[in-house]
Amino acid sequence: MWHQDEIHLSARPRGFHLVTHELVEALPGLEACEMGLVHLQLLHTSASLTLNENSDPDVRHDMDAFMRRLVPEGLDYFRHTLEGPDDMPAHVMASLLGTQLTLAVRDGRLALGTWQGIWLGEHREYGGSRRVIMTLNGRDSA
Amino acid sequence: MWHQDEIHLSARPRGFHLVTHELVEALPGLEACEMGLVHLQLLHTSASLTLNENSDPDVRHDMDAFMRRLVPEGLDYFRHTLEGPDDMPAHVMASLLGTQLTLAVRDGRLALGTWQGIWLGEHREYGGSRRVIMTLNGRDSA
Amino acid sequence: MWHQDEIHLSARPRGFHLVTHELVEALPGLEACEMGLVHLQLLHTSASLTLNENSDPDVRHDMDAFMRRLVPEGLDYFRHTLEGPDDMPAHVMASLLGTQLTLAVRDGRLALGTWQGIWLGEHREYGGSRRVIMTLNGRDSA
Repeated sequence: MWHQDEIHLSARPRGFHLVTHELVEALPGLEACEMGLVHLQLLHTSASLTLNENSDPDVRHDMDAFMRRLVPEGLDYFRHTLEGPDDMPAHVMASLLGTQLTLAVRDGRLALGTWQGIWLGEHREYGGSRRVIMTLNGRDSA
Repeated sequence: MWHQDEIHLSARPRGFHLVTHELVEALPGLEACEMGLVHLQLLHTSASLTLNENSDPDVRHDMDAFMRRLVPEGLDYFRHTLEGPDDMPAHVMASLLGTQLTLAVRDGRLALGTWQGIWLGEHREYGGSRRVIMTLNGRDSA
Repeated sequence: MWHQDEIHLSARPRGFHLVTHELVEALPGLEACEMGLVHLQLLHTSASLTLNENSDPDVRHDMDAFMRRLVPEGLDYFRHTLEGPDDMPAHVMASLLGTQLTLAVRDGRLALGTWQGIWLGEHREYGGSRRVIMTLNGRDSA
């Protein structure tokens, strides 16, 4: 079985956000998949998708605080500055964290660990809605 | 052909470890796969999976030394500190390095480059055994 | 449908390079694929593949400038120095940025966002030609 769909994640402020439920609810055919893989690809270059902790909001706070210091705004050697001071750091973060994920599916559900969730890293101040193309490939449980 | 299995990697100390053989030995059906993909997903958020050099242990030492300085313990703005000083840095490293890998399969073997191996990044002092869900999808050689 | 092929990207200087067209032209069967996934895997441990901005060369310049400062040459705790001062930083960058990518295919084309392109990160001074194994899996449009 193959399914493919494009969804729009609602706009979020700069930082890291749990989007597991928003993505899973939009996944057609997931329940009918006994064993397979889901591929998620952001269609943007200034945001990211990553697997991380799904429970304590402080983890997402600390990741944001760390990444802002790792890739600060206003570095004097940056040339790509026309789109604002948050833009070039956002491109760097997108490549460090990644913009695509492949996840295991088992018995009609994402086979995530107990503490795993899908994070959207929104790296722009006003990134707006973000598009994700989701591709499901697997064996039907029927 | 689809195969899926969950394995437990034996507990290892903090640092980077070559786990190619431990994973391949646990992969059912790999030899029968003429062409395909293997997906590996750690079910944890404080360890990582990455492809890197498979020969000189100094490369793994240097990576560990670098990562400890890049994401040090005890940063004063970290709020998620209840689980110990190594926990929040471990979450950061898990997202920077990644917790899932997809690898090409060719003629019943992983199609790795001559110098490529699969590394487990153990980012906790006492992370214990780590679970990996492995999904193989491909064309049968039969 | 499954297709698998190995290609050689032409040698490039240290830095980041747009290789979308070079890869797509070498992808057999892409046009006949209605819906699917392409997997790209570098067979090296001192270069990287990442999705990022496809238009302004300054973005690639700034990424290179940032990465050179993030992982400088000559760190005094590096032990793996025999292959030259650019080698160990190249291994670190390969794991931070990643050496494999999975990309969505839709209607016979890569389903990239408007501003997305595939970057080769060449992290050695003289890395030479780089080998990539490409695996296409999908549903035939026929």
